[in-house]
Order: sequence, then structure tokens, then C-alpha cells
Amino acid sequence: MKDGVYYSEYLQLDKILNAQQLESDRTDRAHAHDEMLFIIIHQSYELWFKQVLYEVGTVLDIMGQPDIKDSSPDLFVVNHRLKRVNVIFHTLIGKIDILETMTPLDFLDFRNMLRPASGFQSIQFKLLEGLLGLRMENRHMQEYYISQLKPEDVETIRSVEKKKPLIDLVNEWLERMPFFDDKSFWPGWDGNSLHEFWKKYLEQYNNSLQPAEKANYNRFEEMVVGNEKKPGQSLSPKARRAALFIMLYRDYPLLQLPFNLINNLMELDENISTWRYRHIHMVHRMIGSRTGTGGSTGKDYLTGALNKHYIFAEFAELTSFLIERRNLPQLSDKLKTRLGFEQ
Amino acid sequence: MKDGVYYSEYLQLDKILNAQQLESDRTDRAHAHDEMLFIIIHQSYELWFKQVLYEVGTVLDIMGQPDIKDSSPDLFVVNHRLKRVNVIFHTLIGKIDILETMTPLDFLDFRNMLRPASGFQSIQFKLLEGLLGLRMENRHMQEYYISQLKPEDVETIRSVEKKKPLIDLVNEWLERMPFFDDKSFWPGWDGNSLHEFWKKYLEQYNNSLQPAEKANYNRFEEMVVGNEKKPGQSLSPKARRAALFIMLYRDYPLLQLPFNLINNLMELDENISTWRYRHIHMVHRMIGSRTGTGGSTGKDYLTGALNKHYIFAEFAELTSFLIERRNLPQLSDKLKTRLGFEQ
Amino acid sequence: MKDGVYYSEYLQLDKILNAQQLESDRTDRAHAHDEMLFIIIHQSYELWFKQVLYEVGTVLDIMGQPDIKDSSPDLFVVNHRLKRVNVIFHTLIGKIDILETMTPLDFLDFRNMLRPASGFQSIQFKLLEGLLGLRMENRHMQEYYISQLKPEDVETIRSVEKKKPLIDLVNEWLERMPFFDDKSFWPGWDGNSLHEFWKKYLEQYNNSLQPAEKANYNRFEEMVVGNEKKPGQSLSPKARRAALFIMLYRDYPLLQLPFNLINNLMELDENISTWRYRHIHMVHRMIGSRTGTGGSTGKDYLTGALNKHYIFAEFAELTSFLIERRNLPQLSDKLKTRLGFEQ
Amino acid sequence: MKDGVYYSEYLQLDKILNAQQLESDRTDRAHAHDEMLFIIIHQSYELWFKQVLYEVGTVLDIMGQPDIKDSSPDLFVVNHRLKRVNVIFHTLIGKIDILETMTPLDFLDFRNMLRPASGFQSIQFKLLEGLLGLRMENRHMQEYYISQLKPEDVETIRSVEKKKPLIDLVNEWLERMPFFDDKSFWPGWDGNSLHEFWKKYLEQYNNSLQPAEKANYNRFEEMVVGNEKKPGQSLSPKARRAALFIMLYRDYPLLQLPFNLINNLMELDENISTWRYRHIHMVHRMIGSRTGTGGSTGKDYLTGALNKHYIFAEFAELTSFLIERRNLPQLSDKLKTRLGFEQ
Repeated sequence: MKDGVYYSEYLQLDKILNAQQLESDRTDRAHAHDEMLFIIIHQSYELWFKQVLYEVGTVLDIMGQPDIKDSSPDLFVVNHRLKRVNVIFHTLIGKIDILETMTPLDFLDFRNMLRPASGFQSIQFKLLEGLLGLRMENRHMQEYYISQLKPEDVETIRSVEKKKPLIDLVNEWLERMPFFDDKSFWPGWDGNSLHEFWKKYLEQYNNSLQPAEKANYNRFEEMVVGNEKKPGQSLSPKARRAALFIMLYRDYPLLQLPFNLINNLMELDENISTWRYRHIHMVHRMIGSRTGTGGSTGKDYLTGALNKHYIFAEFAELTSFLIERRNLPQLSDKLKTRLGFEQ
Repeated sequence: MKDGVYYSEYLQLDKILNAQQLESDRTDRAHAHDEMLFIIIHQSYELWFKQVLYEVGTVLDIMGQPDIKDSSPDLFVVNHRLKRVNVIFHTLIGKIDILETMTPLDFLDFRNMLRPASGFQSIQFKLLEGLLGLRMENRHMQEYYISQLKPEDVETIRSVEKKKPLIDLVNEWLERMPFFDDKSFWPGWDGNSLHEFWKKYLEQYNNSLQPAEKANYNRFEEMVVGNEKKPGQSLSPKARRAALFIMLYRDYPLLQLPFNLINNLMELDENISTWRYRHIHMVHRMIGSRTGTGGSTGKDYLTGALNKHYIFAEFAELTSFLIERRNLPQLSDKLKTRLGFEQ
Repeated sequence: MKDGVYYSEYLQLDKILNAQQLESDRTDRAHAHDEMLFIIIHQSYELWFKQVLYEVGTVLDIMGQPDIKDSSPDLFVVNHRLKRVNVIFHTLIGKIDILETMTPLDFLDFRNMLRPASGFQSIQFKLLEGLLGLRMENRHMQEYYISQLKPEDVETIRSVEKKKPLIDLVNEWLERMPFFDDKSFWPGWDGNSLHEFWKKYLEQYNNSLQPAEKANYNRFEEMVVGNEKKPGQSLSPKARRAALFIMLYRDYPLLQLPFNLINNLMELDENISTWRYRHIHMVHRMIGSRTGTGGSTGKDYLTGALNKHYIFAEFAELTSFLIERRNLPQLSDKLKTRLGFEQ
Repeated sequence: MKDGVYYSEYLQLDKILNAQQLESDRTDRAHAHDEMLFIIIHQSYELWFKQVLYEVGTVLDIMGQPDIKDSSPDLFVVNHRLKRVNVIFHTLIGKIDILETMTPLDFLDFRNMLRPASGFQSIQFKLLEGLLGLRMENRHMQEYYISQLKPEDVETIRSVEKKKPLIDLVNEWLERMPFFDDKSFWPGWDGNSLHEFWKKYLEQYNNSLQPAEKANYNRFEEMVVGNEKKPGQSLSPKARRAALFIMLYRDYPLLQLPFNLINNLMELDENISTWRYRHIHMVHRMIGSRTGTGGSTGKDYLTGALNKHYIFAEFAELTSFLIERRNLPQLSDKLKTRLGFEQ
């Protein structure tokens, strides 16, 4: 055998493969066969959460720069890594199939031995939520939340919340989009009051609404006109205008990566939420209406978190404000050139 | 080329491949590229719904027999076909990935041309719900429902509801389980009042509850003791006792197929519900808070149906009433023999 | 019910859902339950092949233009549609799970009634192979091939082969890449003999090879140096140089979509091949070493096609010629600017 | 926070999450972002291999008993666990999607630092192959094999090979099937020469063959008639007869679990082989025709192993010998009763 790196040492398999200690194997207890599966699937989830945090960490570094150059690889890298995170979550969702091979009766063989531990205590998952943008005050049942964790773990989560999360960095990046403010792109516009583009757009949008949908017009004005970020909202109207513009003119080279970025964020929300959803089903099938090992009301807690913990929902809402491509306002030639490649 | 069957004729591909007429290709309209995808994915769904109805139809025929012989292949066939239906639904869920390659803006190119058609009008899907056990009076927003369909289609659905649905046939089949009533299996039991088995079981169950779970005991008594099916419920207490017994002693040969059957039904509910869930997400991402082409409030209608249209949820609830295997009441030797193979 | 489009009419469900005629239901035969599944899964495949041909057809139109403007949405659209084709194939692969719920014994109930029809006769699939780049003379067992199809179907396939397939269009598009020929991007290069860039690159590549890999150097020279497309090859050395450059400098904005395009083509090859592979397994499990209904040797024919019908394999081979990023030749500032966005 | 088990301690996350040491982070090297992914995906695979070995270990214990009682839960448990192993492999296959988000160029950033380590050195995977039935002498390129592993690891694998592998235990279990030898089930049979059942069966089989398939008859005689296991084969003719009988009469209650067992083994082979197949593709895309980090010829080695390492292929071959259900020999009433439940 040649010198150099050896597979099992490189992967530190002595640690990885010797970290399974079944509670049901302790003295005076009866070995519960399926506890091994329970441990290994959770360890596997935690390994992947580590990878996700690693990817998201570098995404935060890049998006946290005061300026992201269009011609740098930055956005390319951000998209590539968010895409990877989405592929990972897609796999995590499928993996629930494995846990579903454990029947409720088999789980009962060791369930009580785990109290009060519960998946709820996954710090890495909570860190991820925090890095993306969930704040303690918006967490479902935050008091229950704090009571279930070691103080140092609560501290770790709080410390992450002191940094700007991804949603804020994306909001700022969108706000920096230069096209609307630069009058040279909008011949004939005097730079005052409502931007010419949005005036036309609002008109077209209004025309496109069915009678039952007229409330959408007010919602549009509220969400997209103005400048200040309203309390409880993640995106400012200015950022929303940029995002909407990106969604509408995504065919132009300069807007393709920004469009991918917005899609990747919405897909991440959808993946996390599908993961929660399948988790709820699995828990329901496993313990019915019993309390979870952590003392929660099981399914009810999880459903609450599912509904409340969306982070990028405001992007999805922008879909309500699209108009048909054929009615889009024409852009000036100067702007069109600016959205393309160097000639 | 040899005489005989020819692939394209056998599959009637002249019909299948000439059934795509884009609304956006009609005179005075602009061809919308993605409308083809929209048509084909829905046609593909309908093909699979036909297959599902075909399988479920034979399952109903078998389960509708006055008696199902243990040694006949009947239950084997029922499980095999329900398994197939589950595999089909699993694939249908994954297929939503394809539709998600259509962006909201691309959908807008032809969306208004489809009004008031909507996936809501899939008669086959509604027939499936009816055959499994959903009744008109339990359908979410039934008036809206009726207003969206041609009278003859409403009639078709109602006519299916006149037949006993799968949930009722399963309830009756469970009620016929002979073991509790036959005193020879329960030496020492006088045949009166609460069955010895359940008396012991209730006691064990009560001991197993955490302080916060004591309400479960009353729920157990309400659901599992007694004989009459209560209004609004799908399963009678008698059937529930049989189902619980099957879940507890599924290791015995005679109970393996019944256990599979119950699992397949719960999995079907979970699959249909996951399908609805991903559908909601997709609709939300596609139209936001706009009304659907059928005039519904889109996401809200779908969420209502998701929560209300579970059919086999009462089986999942039984999980709440399991006790640990080591505390299970011992069965008599005579009963154990009866649950095994011919020697 | 409102006037307008109705779901079942829009989708022409009368055609779609009345196109299943079981051979086993003909007079004097015994109904074979699983034949319905067999018909429906093949119809579903054919629906999706129609969609794939529709997408690939527009990709050919775009790539067949004499020039593709960088700032047009063309490459964006091509990638979007190839991505969709890949998602479709991914789903088709998963769908084999459904057919695997049919056991060999159940298949035997109607297998002989189908002779000599076989999936081999799927014209749409053969058209797809032809549009991508497979020529009749490279088809595995072409004589057998022709003997199994109606003459008019052979004619249809041959007529498609008269058009330039995707692989040729991509080759030409790559050959048009302007950067190497323009001396202003390569200060100091006299424009003669081997390009400065590739001279440096070959040296680095040579240094990177392990002793056992030295044959790769000659292979590199053979594949990447020179200009003429060699007989039996799909890509010219010139196109390969462009593709390799794209793979190496994919971080630059201008090269991102081209990089995606190459990846999408490789992924398509991999998907089609995985589809063939799972198909082989399924056939093997279904009929073992018996001949297929079309008279082929079943598994052996399919394995031959699997190995011979790769279309974009020459892109995958380029991977062998990559060098480490840190050793990449530096590009001139002028070229870097040209690979970026308009400032 | 309540006393008791705490999630992160229970899962020993201090070990699991601190076992990632990047080679590219060592002094004088440049951090390669994707090396973390590379480590974590391999650690995750190893975690799951541990679980698979754990399940297969108990399957071996059960199947290794001198006798498996029909009415015990043994076969039920064996099937349940093999099913789980199959679900795990299905997930492992899907997980390759994650690794495919790493591009060849990103891999090059750290690839050379790993030499000569390679996935080839996964001892757990080789143990699994050994436990299922692969012997050293049948391993593809066994000398290369031995040269790549530490002597103690070669020893570990060899020691596993000293135990009876699953394929042998299944063979013995099939040979014990009692029905053919018991003359009371076959009225009129004198117990000599070729069994009445197989005489009839061979005749029917012969009639069912197409002219081009006549060689199958001899193959059938060779594989299924006789008693001795031939050198190089995994199953004896006696065991094959039992397996074929199970496949043909799987509808009878007693044969359902045995039928499932055979199917689960074939599915395991298919899953492992699909896993290898996707692995080959991924390696090919990653390194083309370069040598692997372990010095192997990469794709070629893997393809060799793919073709040679099937373990349960002889079951799949039995499919070639099935006949149509309607032509099956009738069983005696006594035997039919014996294949059913206690009445």
C-alpha cells in the first residue's frame, strides 16, 4: 500500500462510526433494534446541516460586501451554493422514507428512554433559520423554545441573530440596484414623484385584474410604492421594485443571475417547508396525538412552525403583481445596452 | 416487418399525440410556448388517474365481498394494487418538478385564455375521492364546487357516492374479525361487559401516559370502547379495536396482510395530501394571491381541501393508543395457533 | 357554470381516456389485469416524448441561426428548455418504479398477445435520438432496426437525419467563438503556429499527469490541437478548444450560459443513458433471457444500444484535460473586460 | 430545562461534527471550498453503510438458524429489514445528485491532495459485499484490490468471508422446502426419477418457447433439474426449484413472505448495481479518463465491478423459466390446504 492519505483516517471514521450509543442498550434495559436507525438518521441530518451552514456562511460573506461587482464571479458562486443547498434539502426530504420504515410500535420500544430529548433541540437547524432571517421574536412558541434548550445553546442562537441575516443582505443588495434612479435611462422623466415606469405599470396591472381581484391593486401600492420598510416586513418597497423588475426582464443577461438568486431563495423556503411538512406527517404517523419526547404537542407545534417560519415569502407574493409580457413597458435603448454584455 | 400488433396502433398514438390544441394558437392570439407543457402534464395526470381508478375499482370489488377468505389471494391482491396506487402517487408528486420549470411570467402568456377551466374540474380526481370515502357534504366549499362543474359531471360524482366507499368496506371487514367474540380464545372470560383484553389494555395504556397526556385516556375510551359508529366518524369502535389488535400483533402470519392493508391506506392518505401540498406551493408560486382560472381564491381553497379531505385519518389516530410491546397482554395458545399457518 | 373553456374539453380527455384497448380483452381471451398499466405507462411515456421533441425542436431552431447574439435571450431560452427536458427525463426514470410493480408472472398473462410490438418501435424516441445526433449508420444493429418498423416510419426517421442535429449545431456554434482568433486579446502573440494559450496550457497539463497517465498527453494533442473534424467524431478540435475554455473560465459572465449549455447536454446524455439502464434492469427482471416481444434478444440488444448511443460523450471526455485553477494561464485585461458586462 | 437525555449529547454531535479536517486547509495549501462537501458526503455514506451492516447482520442471524418456523415472526422481520436496506440504498443513489453539484474544476482544487485514498477503500462496503456473498476470488481485479488496503483491513474482509454469506443461507433455506419430497402431497407419484410436477412443467415450458428460444429448454434442464450445486454457482438446482415454485404460487399465504424475500434480494442487487452505475457516471464526469486518486483506471475498474459483482443474479435468471399462469399444473387439495392458514 502506498504512503499518503488513507480513506478511513481522512474521514475520521473512528469517530463517525463509534458515536452510536443506544439508550436501550444501557443496563437493565432491553435492546430496541430500531434505535440504531433513529440515531443514524439524526446524525446524518446533522452532518448535512453542517454542510448547509458552511455553504450559507460563505453566501453571507459574499452578500455582505458593500458592493457586488456584476462582472465578478460573486453572484455565480452564490447561486451555485444555494443551488447545492437546495439539492441537499431535496435529498433530506426523500430520506424521511427511511425513517418511515420504523413502525410506531417499534418506536415505542425506546421512545420513553429519550425524554426529554427531541429533534426540536437541533441547534444547527435553528442557527440556519437564524442566518436566513428568522428572529427569536417571530419564532413559534418562543418561551417553550427557550425552556427546551441549554442556556448556552440559547446564547449561541441569539448571538447569530445579532448578525445581519441573508434576507436583510438581499434586501440591501436589491435596494442598491441603480437603474431607476439614473435619469439617463428614462428619457423624458423629470425624476420627481412616482416613477414613469411604475405609473405605466400600475395602470397595466389595474387593467389586468378580474373584478374579484381589485383589492390586489391597493396591496400592490402598499407593497411596491414608497421607500420605507414597514415594521414586520422583510423587504422594503424599493427592494421589491428591484425584485419585480428582475422577474419581468430576467431575459437580459445582467438580470439572469439575480433572477436565479430570487428563485433559489424561494425554492429554499419551499424545500424547508416541505421538509417540515413531511416531518409533521411522519411524527403524526409515529405518535398520533401523544406528546413528543420533548413534551411538545407534537404535530401542533410543528404545524405552527410550518406556517410561521417562512422567510422569503415576500418574494413569492410579488408573483401576484406580474403583468403579461406583451404589456410590459418598453425600455430605452440605453438601458437595454446596459443590461447586456460588453460589445 | 412481421404481421401482428404494431406499437403505435396498439397504443392508439394517433389519438394520444393529436389531442393537444393550444388556446394560444387560435386566430388572433400569440403562441405561448409553455402551454404545450401545461396541456401535456395535465393529460398525463389524467391518464394516471384512470389507472388509479381502475386499480381502486377492483379493490372495491374484492373488499365488497360478504366474506374474504384468509387463504384466498384476495388480500394479497388488494395490497399489491394499493401499493401500486401509492407508487403512482409518489411519481405524480415528483412530476410537479416538471411544472415548476414554467415561470409565472410564462404562465401569464396564456393563463387568461383558459378561464374558467381549472384543475378543479378534474372529474376523475373527484371520483377517486368519492370511491375512497369523501362525501359531497364533507367537501370543502361544496357550493362553489357544484357551480364549477357541468350538471352531468356533478351527477356522475353523486352517483359514485351512492355506492359504499372503500373506507366503509374496510370498516365492515374489520368488524367481521372473529377473535374477540369467540370465547374459546379467551379462557376465563365470561363474555359479558368489557372484554378482558381491553380491560387489561386500558390499564396498561393509562400507566403509559405522561401527566400532560391524561386526556388521551378519555379519548381512547370514546373511540375504542362501545359498538356504534358515531355520526361523522368513519370507523366504528368495533372496527377500531380490530385495527388496533392488528397493529399490535402484526407479527403473526394471519395479521400481516391486514397490517399491510392499514398501512397502505394511511400511506395513500399521506400521498394524496402531499400531492395537494406541493400543488398548493406550486399554485402559490405561480399566481401568488391572484384568483385561479376557475375563480377560486387559489391557494386558500386548496389549503381548505387539504385540511378537510383526509379519508383514513382515523387509522393514523389509533397510533395514539399503542402501548409498549413488552406490556402487551399475552394471547392464549389457542389464539396464537389460530393466527398461524396450518401445521 | 360560466361560459368558456372547460377542463375536460380543453384537454380532449374523450380521446386521451378512450384510447386503451386491451389485447387480452378481445374475444376468446382472458382479461389480464395488468395490461392496462402496461398501456398507460407507455402512453404516458409517449406524451412526454412529444413534449421533449417540442422543446428540442425549438432548441434546434435557435441554435440553427447563423449567429447567436450574446445579449439576446437565446442562450437563456435554450438552457431553460434543455433543463426542462432533463427534469422530464429524470421523472421518466423514476416512473419505471411503477412498471416494476408488475410481476413477471402477471406480464406473462398478456405478453404473447403483443407480438411483435415492442417499445423498440417508439418512433418518437428514435426521432429524438436523430435530432440530437445519432445517425442510422451508428445505430446498434441497424438491420434488425429497420426490419422492425413500417417503411413509412423508417422514412420518417431518415428524413429527420437529413437535418443538422443538435450536436452539429453546437459544434458550429463553438467553432464561432471569437476569442482565440482575435490577436488583440493576446498581446505578444504573432498569430502563427500553436496558439500561445494552448502552448502554455499543454505544458501545465503535462506537468499535472501522473506517470501512469502520460498517454493522456497524446490524446489531448490529438483531440484538441488541429482544426479538422476527424471522421467518426462529433466535435472538431476547434470546437473542443472553445468548450474547454468555457469550462475553465466559466466564472466570467459571458461564459456562464455557454457553460450551462455544455452541462445540460452532458446531463441529457446521462439521463437518457440512466433511463436505458433502468429499462434494461426492468426488462431483465421481467423476461430474463427470453426474447422480447419484438424478437430481440431483450437485454443484450438494450445493452448494446446503451453503450453505443451516447451523443455528447466527447464533452465528458474533455474533463480529462482540465488543469488546476491555480495553474491556469492569466487572461489579458482586454479579454477579461470582453467577458464581462457593459460597464 | 428538564433533566434527562439531551439531543446533542445523545447523538454525540461533538464527535460527528468535529470530524471534518480538510487536507486543503493544511499549512501551505489553499483552502478548497468543495472539499467539505466531499468529506461530508462520504461520512454520510459510511454512516448508512453502518446501518445497512447492522440490518444485514440480524438478517444473517435469523436466516442462519437451522430451521425457520413458518408461524414465527422471523421471515416477517427479515423482509422488513431487507426492505429498509433497499429504501436506504434508494436514498444513497439519489444522494449522488448532491455530489454532482461539484464541478470537475472544483474537484481538481483538492483532488491530488487525497492520493492515494479513494472510495475504493471503504471497508464497510466490502464487508457488505462479503456478507451478501461476494468472495475474494470473484472480486474484480483482486490483486489491485489487496494492494490498496491496509493488511489489517484485508484481514477483516477475509474473516467475514469465513462465515456463510446470505446467499448460502438462502440457498439452504430454499433446499429445506418440504413440499416436493412429501409424497402425500402428490397423489399418484411414486417418488422416483423426475418429479411429476416438473415433468409436466418442462413440457409446458417447452411449448411456450418461440423457435429462437429453444436453447432455453436446455438451460432450464441444466439449472433446475438435478441436485448438486455446480461449481461457480450460488444456488443448487434444488433451491432453484423451490424458488421457482414460490414465484409461481406466491398467491398462497404460506408463500407470500418467501416471495417477498426473493424479490427483496433481487431488488437489493438492482439497487447496489444502480448505485455503482450512477457512481461510474459521476466519476466519469468528474475525472474523465484520468486515473482515480487510488490509482485505478477509474471508470474501467468500476465498470468491471459493476458487471461482476451481482450476487443474486441467479434468482433473476429464473424469470426466464416461468410459464403462463393458466398453464400451471394444478396442486392437490392437501397441498393447497398446507399452503394456507390454520382453519
